[in-house]
Amino acid sequence: MRPLAVELNRIIERENPHVAAMLSDLGRRLYFPKGILAQSAEAKQKATRYDATIGIAWENRKPMFLPAVMQYFNGLSAAEAVTYAPATGQPQLRRMWREKLLRHNPALEGKSFSTPIVTSGVTHALSLTADLFVQRGDLVLLPDKFWENYELLFGVRYQARLVAFPLFRPGGGFNVDGLRQSLESHAEAGKIILILNFPNNPTGYSLTADEAEETAVVIQQAAEKGRNLLVISDDAYFGLFYHPAAFQQSLFAKLAGTHERLLAVKVDGPTKEEFVWGFRTGMLTFGAKASSSDKALYDALEMKVSGAIRSAISNCSQPAQSVLAKALAEQQIDQQRAEKKRILQQRAEKVWEVLRRPEFADLWEPYPFNAGYFMCLKLKGIDAEAFRKHLLDEHGVGVIADGPHDIRVAFSAVDVENIEELYCILATAARELRAAAASG
Amino acid sequence: MRPLAVELNRIIERENPHVAAMLSDLGRRLYFPKGILAQSAEAKQKATRYDATIGIAWENRKPMFLPAVMQYFNGLSAAEAVTYAPATGQPQLRRMWREKLLRHNPALEGKSFSTPIVTSGVTHALSLTADLFVQRGDLVLLPDKFWENYELLFGVRYQARLVAFPLFRPGGGFNVDGLRQSLESHAEAGKIILILNFPNNPTGYSLTADEAEETAVVIQQAAEKGRNLLVISDDAYFGLFYHPAAFQQSLFAKLAGTHERLLAVKVDGPTKEEFVWGFRTGMLTFGAKASSSDKALYDALEMKVSGAIRSAISNCSQPAQSVLAKALAEQQIDQQRAEKKRILQQRAEKVWEVLRRPEFADLWEPYPFNAGYFMCLKLKGIDAEAFRKHLLDEHGVGVIADGPHDIRVAFSAVDVENIEELYCILATAARELRAAAASG
Repeated sequence: MRPLAVELNRIIERENPHVAAMLSDLGRRLYFPKGILAQSAEAKQKATRYDATIGIAWENRKPMFLPAVMQYFNGLSAAEAVTYAPATGQPQLRRMWREKLLRHNPALEGKSFSTPIVTSGVTHALSLTADLFVQRGDLVLLPDKFWENYELLFGVRYQARLVAFPLFRPGGGFNVDGLRQSLESHAEAGKIILILNFPNNPTGYSLTADEAEETAVVIQQAAEKGRNLLVISDDAYFGLFYHPAAFQQSLFAKLAGTHERLLAVKVDGPTKEEFVWGFRTGMLTFGAKASSSDKALYDALEMKVSGAIRSAISNCSQPAQSVLAKALAEQQIDQQRAEKKRILQQRAEKVWEVLRRPEFADLWEPYPFNAGYFMCLKLKGIDAEAFRKHLLDEHGVGVIADGPHDIRVAFSAVDVENIEELYCILATAARELRAAAASG
Repeated sequence: MRPLAVELNRIIERENPHVAAMLSDLGRRLYFPKGILAQSAEAKQKATRYDATIGIAWENRKPMFLPAVMQYFNGLSAAEAVTYAPATGQPQLRRMWREKLLRHNPALEGKSFSTPIVTSGVTHALSLTADLFVQRGDLVLLPDKFWENYELLFGVRYQARLVAFPLFRPGGGFNVDGLRQSLESHAEAGKIILILNFPNNPTGYSLTADEAEETAVVIQQAAEKGRNLLVISDDAYFGLFYHPAAFQQSLFAKLAGTHERLLAVKVDGPTKEEFVWGFRTGMLTFGAKASSSDKALYDALEMKVSGAIRSAISNCSQPAQSVLAKALAEQQIDQQRAEKKRILQQRAEKVWEVLRRPEFADLWEPYPFNAGYFMCLKLKGIDAEAFRKHLLDEHGVGVIADGPHDIRVAFSAVDVENIEELYCILATAARELRAAAASG
């Protein structure tokens, strides 16, 4: 163990022994070297004459750049477009994201949470969390409808034990009792990692305000009973709530800093919220309770995350961060984002309307949805993969087969005037497969 | 072990059992899921009517975007700027990079090497290689002047055992004998991971043509003696060769596909070669010998790398790849790059000239350098950290202290007309510290 890692572990242990106990072996080993980057940071302040520390090329006090590259940017300086960003991201963008979290999550007011760390997309925020906290064999609890990459990430890469509970209770709505039972039935686990992804991929379901409150209480009760909990709110689709009954905030806002044994983690980011998927800009935020200084605890965790970033990808896209920092500072962006949300909401409302048709009732059962990009249908007596292939080959329509019975439909990708036709084609395809099975 | 991983392992084992034997536990577990992405790829071909598979938002057959964001791009479509890139990168950019490798490394002609995989920077290419091949306790051999992040990456994250041999032989020049002895003295290791970084960070040294040939022979002899070797050519600074004696190609070009027991890995990328550090676009290329099909072996390795990318960051920056694919296709870029190289070369030549001054001889010994961004001085009887601080506080000049005696100077960051003054300030500072020590 390197001395800098020992020092960080000591701070975390002092500020919150439960958080320290949840660190993985890698999490315990991580630190941020006081080498080139620290010396460079010092030189940035003091080297008023010549700064010969930096690992890029400069010319006339500006970064070198090729005009063949820079011509594709507009309103960005070479420094904003081509230089390195700090390992944890541009300070200004991080501050703006923190303010955005407060603005969109009034329940965060007065709660303790860290300044978001910039990551290379939401997946990266998840894998950084796993670097610090997921040890081989650890229990990861999650609802049974989840993004397939969780398995590759938590299961295959980090070798956690994924245990799913049913997302929906029998009558529909989030299965708070299932979560409670699941937490209770793993009382032996020293730590439980819980992943809650709302708006949910694949179902498009998001918690109601009551469910969010009940869920927070269940989690806090588990902490009170002595369970160490890492609760990851995967808020990739945050903001895209279409039904007034959906809780318009993150569950993180109810959890952050509420119990010593509870480390709340929020992963989110501009990738989906600002419609810039390929930018690879995500955010990672912690909410915890410290014994003497929240800042000391968050700083120590941030140093470990910096080390995790540096040891795998060094740093994240600078031009993406520069564009986002500028765009988020503009007045019109809120209205532009609201306009896109309105378009998506109209599609969701159209899907709700179309799905009420009685002639679809014997073909499928839609899962509840009120948010996000997707909705799912549970096909009745039709194999999902056969359905997907038939639909694609005979009707030129693509959907995702998810398990034996479910298909996922991205209404985020279909204009509102085509929604009705889309579901009519799905119904036709389902009937064709039924007829073929009956005559076959 | 998932069935898809078993299948990939079977192919690798069939095509090259030595490469299979070098896989780490994680490397063996990795695969690329045939889930959402595979179904989406199929839909992209066949869903002529509606494609409701995709995980982004579309509007009028185009990706949604916020004008507040898009205004910072020039000549890029929304699809080029904001959508997801494939996990392994844009096919066109990958092909262009392969052609660039052939153009700049004539020794690659007729040799077997894979199509480069796009990574999120050179560090990411290194950590992906480690994901596949570095197991806890593995031996990583490297010259004793190396980029500090190797320790955090290979040592702390992957828990390899780093063993260094002296970079320079006593009279100067690359220590080929040291490499040979080092390989021989670890004959017991089932596999050896060797990292060779030329142009070198921190020293700015690059192999001469003779040294490159001797090094390749030493490596091939070790393979012939039954050692399984993973040889990583870290070519981050490729192309920046300033002295005609420096070998102008990558060592990878001499190693790729030359022996069954030798897996050559090239990590490089536009980040430094095209002066776009913050873009985070690197490249990862394999060179191996397969029993029946190089393509089958490379495809299987690529699927494992795809899984490693997806399980940690999902995919890499799309706008960076779009800009680079366009820029690399332009006529002027070669001339623009050559112009930047000329500027850096003039600085290197000026440094050589200044360093010949007899009055510096008792202050430091420069390490040989002929390439890259940096050069190093070995201070005589002066502590490097004390020197760095004195220089910064008293003279406003920043350099990197690297170990007890060495300082690294980035001439990449200092204009040619200031080089002489810079070294005079270094000399003044060194004499001041000497005088203070003598009187203290």
